Amino acid sequence: MKGQILKALRERSDYLSGETLSEQLGISRVSIWKHIRSLKKDGYVIEASPRGYRLVSSPDLLLPYEFPDLEQRIHYFPEIGSTMDAARELAKKGAEEGTIVIAEAQTHGRGRLSREWLSPEGGIYFTLVLRPRISPAYAPRINLMASVAVAATIKKLCGLKAELKWPNDVLIEGRKVCGILAEMDAETDVVNFVNVGIGINANTSVPQFEKTVTSLKDALGREISRKEFLSALLVEIERRQALLMEADLLEEWKKLSATLNKDVRIMSLGEEVIGQAIDIDATGALILKGQDGSLRTVLVGDCIHLRE
Amino acid sequence: MKGQILKALRERSDYLSGETLSEQLGISRVSIWKHIRSLKKDGYVIEASPRGYRLVSSPDLLLPYEFPDLEQRIHYFPEIGSTMDAARELAKKGAEEGTIVIAEAQTHGRGRLSREWLSPEGGIYFTLVLRPRISPAYAPRINLMASVAVAATIKKLCGLKAELKWPNDVLIEGRKVCGILAEMDAETDVVNFVNVGIGINANTSVPQFEKTVTSLKDALGREISRKEFLSALLVEIERRQALLMEADLLEEWKKLSATLNKDVRIMSLGEEVIGQAIDIDATGALILKGQDGSLRTVLVGDCIHLRE
Repeated sequence: MKGQILKALRERSDYLSGETLSEQLGISRVSIWKHIRSLKKDGYVIEASPRGYRLVSSPDLLLPYEFPDLEQRIHYFPEIGSTMDAARELAKKGAEEGTIVIAEAQTHGRGRLSREWLSPEGGIYFTLVLRPRISPAYAPRINLMASVAVAATIKKLCGLKAELKWPNDVLIEGRKVCGILAEMDAETDVVNFVNVGIGINANTSVPQFEKTVTSLKDALGREISRKEFLSALLVEIERRQALLMEADLLEEWKKLSATLNKDVRIMSLGEEVIGQAIDIDATGALILKGQDGSLRTVLVGDCIHLRE
Repeated sequence: MKGQILKALRERSDYLSGETLSEQLGISRVSIWKHIRSLKKDGYVIEASPRGYRLVSSPDLLLPYEFPDLEQRIHYFPEIGSTMDAARELAKKGAEEGTIVIAEAQTHGRGRLSREWLSPEGGIYFTLVLRPRISPAYAPRINLMASVAVAATIKKLCGLKAELKWPNDVLIEGRKVCGILAEMDAETDVVNFVNVGIGINANTSVPQFEKTVTSLKDALGREISRKEFLSALLVEIERRQALLMEADLLEEWKKLSATLNKDVRIMSLGEEVIGQAIDIDATGALILKGQDGSLRTVLVGDCIHLRE
C-alpha cells in the first residue's frame, strides 16, 4: 500500500488531498495518514498542508514501495549477512518464483566459488528466486541470462558499453562492474530452484590503485539512480526468462562477449586449460581450440583473457 | 568403540575376557562393561561369565557398530521422516564426504520428482553425502554409479541378475527392487554436495497383486542379511567413486541396462518423447533415435519400456 501511495503522490506535482487518496486507494483517511507517517520514518519528506500531501523528496534507498508492482515479492534489508542465504531460506520454505531479497549492504556478501563479495552501501545487491523447469545441465544459461540483462541495462540507462567475460562477469572498459552468483537446489536431473545473486558496483567509489574493478559512478562520472537501475534491470531479466532455452539468448551473449575469439587461460577444478575461445555450447560451456586444433569444452572455471 | 568391541567378540568363537578386551582396545574394564551394557540394551545378547564375554546373537538392525570402519560417519535412526532431509541438514552444516544417514523405517520417504517412497521396516534406507568436484551437468553420473553398485551387490550377495532402467531404477525380472534419488546443492557450474538416497526392498514383502515391484526376499525366497548387504554395497559404491568421470562407469551401466536397444516412451518435463534408446552420453543423458532416424538427447524423465 505504501507503494501505491508513493505512486499516486509522484503522479501529481501539486498537493494531493487525503480525501482523493482515500477514494483512489479504497482505504480510510486514517490509514492513509498512518502510511504517510511510516513513509516519513523511512526517510521520505512529505509535506502535509490543508490542501493535502506533497512528496518533497525520497531517500536513496531500494525500499519495496519504490517498486509498486513488485512490492509483495520484495524482502528488504538495510543490512544483511548475505541476500543469497536469506533467499535460500525463503526458497526452501516454498517462496514463489520472482521472490526478491534486496539489501543496501551485506556484511558477508558471497561471490563465486565461496569468495567474498564486498558490499558497502551505494551498491545494488539482490537475489532473485527462479524455478525454471530445466535440467541442472542447462542452469549456467541462467547466469548468461542475468549477465546479458545487466549489460543491456547499463547500455540503456547509462549509455555505456558493457562487455561480458565468461562465465558471467560484466565489464566496462575491461573492469568488473558486476558479479553474478547462481546457486541451485536440484535433483540431479531436474532443478528445484535457482537463486541468482547480482551485485553491482553502482554508486560506490573504487580506489584509484584498483585496476580490475570499476563502478557505474566512476565510469560515468556521476551517481546514478539505483532504483531506476534496479527497476529497469528486473524488467530486462523478466523479458529474457521466457527466452531461457532459446538460441536468441546465446546469440545475445555472444554479441556482448569479450571472451570469444580471445586466447584465454582457465583454471578449471584445479587444472589449467589454455586455448582460443571460439564458442559457447547450449549449456553455456565454453569451447576452446587448442594450439593443435583440438576442441575442448570447459564447463567451469576462472577465465583470464591472455591478450586483446 | 562399541563397533570395536563387537568386532573383537565376533573374531572369537569362545569367551573373550574383559582383561584381554581392555588391553586390546586401550580402555578400562569399567568402560568395557559400560559398553557391553549399552549393547545389551540395543538388543545384542552377550553372555557374561567368569571366563569373559561371549556374543550369542545380534539384533537384525543396521546399527552403526555393525560397520566398525564407518561407525564415526554413520547417523542412525530407528525411524525418521526422511534420510534425505537429515542428510541435507548435515551437509549444509559441513558434514564431510562419506557421511551416512541410515534409518530402519521412514515415515515420509521421498522418491524422484517429489514422489513418496514407501519405507517400512525390513528395507534398507540410507543417504550418502558426496562432494565430488564436478559440474552439475555430470551429476546424473552419480545416479548411474549408485545403480551399478546396487546391481553388482545383488549379483554378488544374492546371485540374482539385476538390470537397470534409465535413469536409475534397479530391476529384478522386470520389477523394481531399488529406487535411487540424488539431490544436489550447487553453484550453477560446480557441485557443493550431492546426497544419494538409496531405498532397497530387502526383507519386505510385496503384495501379490503388485506386478511392478519386488523385494530381495520375494525374489530369493528367503531373507537376506541386511547388514552384510549394506556393508557390501558401501564397498561397491566407494570403489566406483574414483571412477565417476571414467568411461568404465558408463560401460558398466550399459552392460547392465535393460533400457538400451528398447523402444521407450519418456515423459520429460511435460513432453512425451518416443524412440529407440540407443546410447547414453557422458552426462548420463539418454540418446533416442526417432522413427525418422533423427537423434534426440533426453536429460530427464520417466521411462517406460514399450516392448522387449
